[in-house]
Amino acid sequence: MKVSVIGKGNMGQAIAKNFEAAGQSVEFIGHGEAQPTFGDLVVFAVPFAAEKDLANQYQTQLAGKIVVEIANPLNFDNWDELVVPSDSSAAEILQTALPQSKVLKAFNTTFAGTLNSGQVGDNQTTVLVAGDDEDAKESFTSSLSGSPLAVMDAGKLKRALEMEALGFLQMTLAAKEKISWNGGFGINQ
Amino acid sequence: MKVSVIGKGNMGQAIAKNFEAAGQSVEFIGHGEAQPTFGDLVVFAVPFAAEKDLANQYQTQLAGKIVVEIANPLNFDNWDELVVPSDSSAAEILQTALPQSKVLKAFNTTFAGTLNSGQVGDNQTTVLVAGDDEDAKESFTSSLSGSPLAVMDAGKLKRALEMEALGFLQMTLAAKEKISWNGGFGINQ
Repeated sequence: MKVSVIGKGNMGQAIAKNFEAAGQSVEFIGHGEAQPTFGDLVVFAVPFAAEKDLANQYQTQLAGKIVVEIANPLNFDNWDELVVPSDSSAAEILQTALPQSKVLKAFNTTFAGTLNSGQVGDNQTTVLVAGDDEDAKESFTSSLSGSPLAVMDAGKLKRALEMEALGFLQMTLAAKEKISWNGGFGINQ
Repeated sequence: MKVSVIGKGNMGQAIAKNFEAAGQSVEFIGHGEAQPTFGDLVVFAVPFAAEKDLANQYQTQLAGKIVVEIANPLNFDNWDELVVPSDSSAAEILQTALPQSKVLKAFNTTFAGTLNSGQVGDNQTTVLVAGDDEDAKESFTSSLSGSPLAVMDAGKLKRALEMEALGFLQMTLAAKEKISWNGGFGINQ
């Protein structure tokens, strides 16, 4: 499967590394490219604030694709709230902006360090994924098979609200040095 | 410290066991008791739906006390939403109903099984606690010192919103048998 990663930050690189470890062909797409060709699975590894413009710019090219949205939409001025409406989520907002794409929420509950190491403390790093298209979730899961990561289905895209709350809480714990940026919530089956 | 636990369900018993292990004197308070005397720390180990009546009944007796609220206020008909407003939490609602008490959110992110065993998989069971009264949080933390549990400060009572989202998500994963009721989100420092 061809995977396109938009964004070369810590998260984009850590995510790309895992898709490569699973044998997928990964390409990075720069913001400035005029007519990019996207793979079947496209990761928006950008801040929440950049998602709207990306969606508007590439809505046509992303039709039919799996779009993986990873943001924790914090108010970074006060670290005390999310900037999305309390009854919605970044992922649901992106799905509305890309009605012809299959939006999945994933990677927001796993720090970059834990995606790189494959471990959250003693736990295998487990990526939660939420989305309304079951086939898209299955493709996502199988596209990471063979990587150091486990993938766990968290339900419909509506669950992105709770995943973003979890990601937010985890970031506040790390910012206050209660946990490290290589630790956090590990998932025990 | 004298700890009063209201509610003798799985959670109430598992919580009581840990306070006892830490050397505290624990008593159970029944719903029907006319004039109960409460300890310095009172655990509402009851469903969310029962909290309002309890608060109204005991508001005077609970003045000045630490009240620990543990509910995950799910809509148990559909397991698809919380019944509290999306910009609030069960804990904040209880604080409003008990303005003279020091309400803490705790124990809602740890299944009863993990409170009994002291383990979430390979992780020590870590109780997140949120609240606006710093002294109350310190008393709560020290009152569990010597038990098998770790306690981690999650911030102000406002963070109960994210803790309840986490507890909700964790319950849906267990109900769908993605995780066991003895597993879930372990905290790795």
